[in-house]
Amino acid sequence: MSVTTNLSFSDVSVDRAYPVPPFAAACVDAARDSWGASFDHPFVQALAQGTLQAERFRFYQMQDARYLEAFSDAAALISTRCPDPDDKLWFIDAARMALVVEGELHAGYGEQLGYDADDIAALTLTPNNRAYQDHMISVAQRGSLVEAVAALTPCPWLYIELGQRMEAEMGAIPDDHPYADWLAMYRDPEFNDYMANLLSRLQRFADAADGAARSRAKEAFQTSIRYEWMFWDQAWTQQTWPV
Amino acid sequence: MSVTTNLSFSDVSVDRAYPVPPFAAACVDAARDSWGASFDHPFVQALAQGTLQAERFRFYQMQDARYLEAFSDAAALISTRCPDPDDKLWFIDAARMALVVEGELHAGYGEQLGYDADDIAALTLTPNNRAYQDHMISVAQRGSLVEAVAALTPCPWLYIELGQRMEAEMGAIPDDHPYADWLAMYRDPEFNDYMANLLSRLQRFADAADGAARSRAKEAFQTSIRYEWMFWDQAWTQQTWPV
Amino acid sequence: MSVTTNLSFSDVSVDRAYPVPPFAAACVDAARDSWGASFDHPFVQALAQGTLQAERFRFYQMQDARYLEAFSDAAALISTRCPDPDDKLWFIDAARMALVVEGELHAGYGEQLGYDADDIAALTLTPNNRAYQDHMISVAQRGSLVEAVAALTPCPWLYIELGQRMEAEMGAIPDDHPYADWLAMYRDPEFNDYMANLLSRLQRFADAADGAARSRAKEAFQTSIRYEWMFWDQAWTQQTWPV
Amino acid sequence: MSVTTNLSFSDVSVDRAYPVPPFAAACVDAARDSWGASFDHPFVQALAQGTLQAERFRFYQMQDARYLEAFSDAAALISTRCPDPDDKLWFIDAARMALVVEGELHAGYGEQLGYDADDIAALTLTPNNRAYQDHMISVAQRGSLVEAVAALTPCPWLYIELGQRMEAEMGAIPDDHPYADWLAMYRDPEFNDYMANLLSRLQRFADAADGAARSRAKEAFQTSIRYEWMFWDQAWTQQTWPV
Repeated sequence: MSVTTNLSFSDVSVDRAYPVPPFAAACVDAARDSWGASFDHPFVQALAQGTLQAERFRFYQMQDARYLEAFSDAAALISTRCPDPDDKLWFIDAARMALVVEGELHAGYGEQLGYDADDIAALTLTPNNRAYQDHMISVAQRGSLVEAVAALTPCPWLYIELGQRMEAEMGAIPDDHPYADWLAMYRDPEFNDYMANLLSRLQRFADAADGAARSRAKEAFQTSIRYEWMFWDQAWTQQTWPV
Repeated sequence: MSVTTNLSFSDVSVDRAYPVPPFAAACVDAARDSWGASFDHPFVQALAQGTLQAERFRFYQMQDARYLEAFSDAAALISTRCPDPDDKLWFIDAARMALVVEGELHAGYGEQLGYDADDIAALTLTPNNRAYQDHMISVAQRGSLVEAVAALTPCPWLYIELGQRMEAEMGAIPDDHPYADWLAMYRDPEFNDYMANLLSRLQRFADAADGAARSRAKEAFQTSIRYEWMFWDQAWTQQTWPV
Repeated sequence: MSVTTNLSFSDVSVDRAYPVPPFAAACVDAARDSWGASFDHPFVQALAQGTLQAERFRFYQMQDARYLEAFSDAAALISTRCPDPDDKLWFIDAARMALVVEGELHAGYGEQLGYDADDIAALTLTPNNRAYQDHMISVAQRGSLVEAVAALTPCPWLYIELGQRMEAEMGAIPDDHPYADWLAMYRDPEFNDYMANLLSRLQRFADAADGAARSRAKEAFQTSIRYEWMFWDQAWTQQTWPV
Repeated sequence: MSVTTNLSFSDVSVDRAYPVPPFAAACVDAARDSWGASFDHPFVQALAQGTLQAERFRFYQMQDARYLEAFSDAAALISTRCPDPDDKLWFIDAARMALVVEGELHAGYGEQLGYDADDIAALTLTPNNRAYQDHMISVAQRGSLVEAVAALTPCPWLYIELGQRMEAEMGAIPDDHPYADWLAMYRDPEFNDYMANLLSRLQRFADAADGAARSRAKEAFQTSIRYEWMFWDQAWTQQTWPV
């Protein structure tokens, strides 16, 4: 690998290829510090540089497989709350994509890294992973639509932003990069359409909410941004329970 | 149309092309009378004979479009209850199919029969339609997995059974049958795989439940069977609210 | 009994002893016809006149016992959606009152009319009762706060209004009135505080919602008003399932 | 204060004044190490010895007030899942007690320690507190009854056990103990009845479940036991978010 210096993803100004409506922009603004921290996490740096130990990547992938099941559940709950059938279908599709597309990725890595579906099912969730999952579920069940969608948004958004920032900073992925497939996935421009759809729905649900609900939604968004950093961190430290 | 006599769908013994595990068989047995009644309903008879008035078919299609949104919601809620990711995906796919495949059908009929998405959204649900929808949602939210799936099962099962009984009794659909597309859809042998999957899950969730929950599940199944008949009936009578 | 002519509860203008905020007033206005019909139902007339057959009153009480369990569930779900702890407690108390206060009433009538808790549990719900219950649950689970509370409001409101209209029209309850206890309960002025609390919360949640959610809430309110009439009717006709 | 040495709550064998059915015993056994750790936590030691800094106690009380709202929500969700009305009422009462009895305690401490309801509402939840809350909600929404109740059980059980162990080890609470009220509350023998009721329901729901659900319930129980330790710890360290 020729990449040896630190990559500055948090300094990269990305021209986003999808519109960012005002409420989404306000969410990012409120969570600014936590948002930037994700890009600087050593796991992310090592992933980009190709120096990440296979064991840590494996740990990450296995925990992530379980995370995606909860993402699907949160999206499914949101779907049941949407009065409009187009919204309903969009969130069902989001649930499905979490299970299918990512599931395929994990199956591929499973064979390569040595784990199967039974290993995933038997996994002990790390504290940070469990907390993030339950946050999405709890807000989807108890909160209003704008809060539920706000809690769901950081996961796809940070990954897509990370993929695009890596592309801007690193350029083409070297053929011999050990995580080339993973990096390539999040550069896929088809995600721009996904983000445009997600953020416009977030805006619409924010427009239908009062100020108090929008405040809670911004808090739910920030909490998920924090959990995103904590998700990288649980994989980097191979986190265990304190007792 | 050459079909003039009553068709005897309730007398037709169908060799089902999918396995019926014991719990599903027990559900049908407990709901035997209500089950058979659906096949004899005048709406069904007229639909098969091609004599159904377009206005009644239109009424049915519009109410059904809204019903399918609730079916999707119930399947989505069930998905969130399934610990196994394969089950989770199966019910998300069931939710999706309710919205997509049927949605396509309704779009086609919408153009033909003169209604669009706004008309569907503005529709007053009939008492029977609303009751059936809310039954599925209530059981999916409050009941155990076996109860939730039992409440969902009659809808696809009765339609597929009806499609196959019609095929056995009527043979090929005449080219000039006004509801040829509709009849053809429910003969599609791809539904056999759907039913096999649904009924095996119902069995598995029944195996994981105690006797009391299985009894409640049989009651939920029977209630949905009754609502199936009442759904034909609300379309036949163009049901309104009593006050 | 000296009461022989029809009582005109629907004509009685009640000076309500609790404030009716604008959104509650708009709900009543939208459901005006269905609202009035409840007061004229023959069950209500016979109940007031003391001519209601014991068997119909027993049928009503047994179905109502099961209804109150669903009312509790809907209030409990609403409680989990309230960010404010005072609201949370108020709806938990509403759930509790449905189970306790009314439960005591039913226990008393149970001894008098010859049924016990096992009979209640084994009861087949009538179509109208089941539909009403599932409506409250479905809206509480899928709708926004204002919709969920709107679906819950008609039950206490109509009963309290009925109690107060009966008092205005009939005056003191004769000592030998066979349903004196029942009539007395809904005249209890402590319900005024309950109504003031419920309607002010409905207003607050309406203020936090957009026009579309308020429209859905009015529809949920009207649907419950209709189900109130249909609840009297299921007891009057001793309703059974059509198949 | 005369208490200067470490108290050994984790060595104290308590004769429990309520029956512990086999499934509850199996849950404790599976979570043995995490269970004991709570009693040894420095926060607990300092609380018993009366040396706990007021600032830490205040931090704890404020976070706990918010925790109890989620406990109420989890109990309310469980209530909606119980087919039996006695169970339904018991969990509504548990929800109510979390809000009322503890609310009173917090109001008292609020005046003494200088915070009010607005401060509680404006509080940033610590990571450990949020995670524990969301765990209870997520399991109550997605899991089966036995799992939901298993996740709820550690909170009252550990506190009651702690109260009784402190009594066995320390004897009478000195009049000048700064946390005398708090210690006294958890010694209240009325909690024995609460525990007997809770654990017998846990057993009954375990009996109705299959082995897989019981395993998940034991995991949910252990997770809550871990969160109990982490709750002491968040107050001890005045935990903040890492980003």
